[in-house]
Amino acid sequence: MWADLAPIGRAGRAGGYFRQPFTPSERELAAWFVEQALARDLEVAIDDTGNTVAWWRPEGASGPAVLTGSHLDSVLEGGAFDGPLGVVSALAAVDVLRERGVTPSRPLGVSVFVEEEGSRFGLACLGSRLATGAVAWDDVRGLHDRRGATLEDEVSGGGPGLLTDVGAFVELHVEQGRDLVHRDAAVGLGSGIWPHGRYRLDLTGRADHAGTTRMEDRADPMLTYAMTVLAANKQARLAGSDGHRATFGRVDVTPNGTNAVPSRVRAWLDARAHSEEALAALVATIERQAVERAERDGTTAALTPESVSGAVQFDPALTGRLAGLLGGLPVIPTAAGHDAGVLAAAGIPTAMLFVRNPTGVSHSPDEHASMPDCLAGVEALADVLAELVA
Amino acid sequence: MWADLAPIGRAGRAGGYFRQPFTPSERELAAWFVEQALARDLEVAIDDTGNTVAWWRPEGASGPAVLTGSHLDSVLEGGAFDGPLGVVSALAAVDVLRERGVTPSRPLGVSVFVEEEGSRFGLACLGSRLATGAVAWDDVRGLHDRRGATLEDEVSGGGPGLLTDVGAFVELHVEQGRDLVHRDAAVGLGSGIWPHGRYRLDLTGRADHAGTTRMEDRADPMLTYAMTVLAANKQARLAGSDGHRATFGRVDVTPNGTNAVPSRVRAWLDARAHSEEALAALVATIERQAVERAERDGTTAALTPESVSGAVQFDPALTGRLAGLLGGLPVIPTAAGHDAGVLAAAGIPTAMLFVRNPTGVSHSPDEHASMPDCLAGVEALADVLAELVA
Repeated sequence: MWADLAPIGRAGRAGGYFRQPFTPSERELAAWFVEQALARDLEVAIDDTGNTVAWWRPEGASGPAVLTGSHLDSVLEGGAFDGPLGVVSALAAVDVLRERGVTPSRPLGVSVFVEEEGSRFGLACLGSRLATGAVAWDDVRGLHDRRGATLEDEVSGGGPGLLTDVGAFVELHVEQGRDLVHRDAAVGLGSGIWPHGRYRLDLTGRADHAGTTRMEDRADPMLTYAMTVLAANKQARLAGSDGHRATFGRVDVTPNGTNAVPSRVRAWLDARAHSEEALAALVATIERQAVERAERDGTTAALTPESVSGAVQFDPALTGRLAGLLGGLPVIPTAAGHDAGVLAAAGIPTAMLFVRNPTGVSHSPDEHASMPDCLAGVEALADVLAELVA
Repeated sequence: MWADLAPIGRAGRAGGYFRQPFTPSERELAAWFVEQALARDLEVAIDDTGNTVAWWRPEGASGPAVLTGSHLDSVLEGGAFDGPLGVVSALAAVDVLRERGVTPSRPLGVSVFVEEEGSRFGLACLGSRLATGAVAWDDVRGLHDRRGATLEDEVSGGGPGLLTDVGAFVELHVEQGRDLVHRDAAVGLGSGIWPHGRYRLDLTGRADHAGTTRMEDRADPMLTYAMTVLAANKQARLAGSDGHRATFGRVDVTPNGTNAVPSRVRAWLDARAHSEEALAALVATIERQAVERAERDGTTAALTPESVSGAVQFDPALTGRLAGLLGGLPVIPTAAGHDAGVLAAAGIPTAMLFVRNPTGVSHSPDEHASMPDCLAGVEALADVLAELVA
C-alpha cells in the first residue's frame, strides 16, 4: 500500500507532497482508498462532502460501531506519513484481524475525513467538523481557496453524516515530535490535544513608490508585520521549553511588487498552548503588540480568529483500557490538531495511537517513521480493534 | 486620450492598474498607441522586444533625431500616471507643434519602452536597456515571471534596436514626491537619478509542524526575514530625512501554509541612496545583519543583486538650456529609476520634465496630477521639442 501511495502528489524536486482536498492528487488517493476497501469486501459509504467510511459488517454484527482511520490530504509540501499512515494502518489492521480469525461482533469502519489540514479552505478538520455537526454547512459553504473557488464549488454538502451510532474512534498517527524517541518506544497513546487556533492578521497601510517616498512619510504594513512576527516568537518563547507555540507560516502581500511599499499585508498566526487560558493570553498579547506597532507605523492591525479548538482530553477510561491491553505504552499529549479531537469533542469516546518519528519533523518532506515502527503500530491498532469489536 | 486609457487594466475594487508587459491589458495599450500614431500620420517602428517609436519625419528633416516618450506598463496595482502621462503628453505635444505650424528640421520620435517597471521579469527598464545595449539579449532571454514564463516565450529579441542617431531624449513623468508642491510649481526639470538597485534575499530554514515543533528546535526563515525588514528600515532612517530608502515590498514564502514553519523565504530589497558609495554601504549593512541573524536562527541568508543602476546626471548643458527656455523652472533630483536614466547612461543627451503630484504618492491608485498641471506639462514639452527640432 505504501508503494502505491508514494508517487501520488509528490513534487519532483524537494519531495514534498501536495495533496490538497479535491485536487487531482487527493482525488486519486480517494479513489485508491475505495479500491482498497472494495478489494477487502468492505462496504463503502461516502457523504456529500467526501468523507468516506469503509464498513466491515459481518453477519450478526450489531451495536455501536468502532471506527478507525485518519486523512489523506496533506499540507502544502507536506510529508508522506501525516494522515496516510493512519489510513494504511487501519486497512492493514483489518487484514491482521482477518488473519487472526477475528469476526467483529460490532460494525468496524475505516474512515477518511477530508481537508484535515485546512490547507485549502483554511478550516482544519473541515470534514470531521461537518460530519459531527461541529460546524454547519451554511457556515462553511462559502469558504474559498487562494484562487477564489468555494467549498460549494467542489462538493454539494448539507446532507446526512456518516457517524450515527459510533461507540469508539481510534486514530493512529505519526508522532509530530520526539516524545517517543526520548521514551524509547515505537508506539504510544495520546492523552489529549493542546488548545490551538489560527488567526488572520490584517494589516493595512498605504501603497507608495519604494524609491521616492521618504521613510518617514510611509505607512508600511510590512514593518508592522515584521515586528509582529518577532513579537509572536518572543512571547511563545517566554513560556520556556516545550511551552507555547506561535508561528507565522503564511503571508500574502498586496501588491507584492519589489518597488512598491505594500498597501496591505495579510498573514496567519498559528498559536498553541497547554491550556485555553494560556492560549488566550498569548494571542491577546501578540494582538496588542501588533496594534501598538501599527499606531507607530501609521497602519492598522486587526486579528480575527479563523478556527480555534479548545483543549481535548481523550476518553480516560478508553485510553486506560488500551494502555493496559498494550502493556504500558507511554501516554503523551500533542500540540497538533486531529480529527480525533473533533470526534472526542462531539462526545464519541476516542483514543489515539502515535508511531515514533526519529526526527520529530512533520509537515515537511523530512517527516518519517521506520517500517518496523509502522508495523508495530499496525499490530497495536489490531490489538485495540480486536478488543473493541469483541 | 486620457479617457481612452482610463479603463484599460484597471482593477474594479481598489482602482489600481495591472499593466504587466505582454499581458492583454498592456498589449491593448500598445495597440492604442499604434492607432494614435497612425492617426497622426506618424511612421511606426517596433523592435523585436516591443519597444516602439512613432516617427514624425517631415520632408527635409535630417540629422540626429529628437526622441520623447515614456512607458505604458505599470507596477502591480499601480497608478494611472506613471508612464502613460509621458506618452500621452508626447502625442499631445506633437499636436501642439502642428497647431503652432512648427515643421521639425530633425526627425521627432515618440517612444514607448517595454517593461520599464520590471514588474514581470524583475529587471527594471528592460526595454530601454536592450535598446541601448546596456544588457545583451542572451543575458535576459531566460528571465522568467512568477509563473515561469520566460522573456523569450513572449518576444523574439536579439534583433536591431531603434535608437540609431538619436541626438536628444526628453521624458516627461509625473513627479513621485512632493518637491514641486513645496516649490509651488506645476512643472520642473530633472537634475539626475539616485543610484538604486533591487536585491534578492534568499533565506532557507527547515520546514516543520507549527504546532508540535518546540520554538527552540526550529530553523525558521520567517524570523530572519522579519528582523531583516526592521534592520533595513532602521538603516535607511539613520541617514535622516530624505536620506536613504530601503524597502521590502515583495516576499514569497515556501510552502506558505498556516500550520507549517516555512522552509524558505525569498524577498526582494529595493534600496536607493544619494551616492553610489552610500548605496553600497547601506546594502552591505543590511546584508551583514541578515547573515548575523540567520546564524542565530539556524537559517542561511544570501543577498543577490538583480539590477543595480549607478547615479545618473542628466545632461547639464541640455538641462540648463531648457531651464532657460522655460523661464526658471525648478530643477530637482529623483530617487525613481526611468528609461531616461538608461538612455543618459548610454551617452544620449537626456532631460526630464516632472509634473506636480499633489500627494506625492506613486505606484498606487492614489497617484495623481491635476488636468491644468498636465496641460502645463504638455506646453512645456512642446516648447522644449520646438527648440530641439528647430
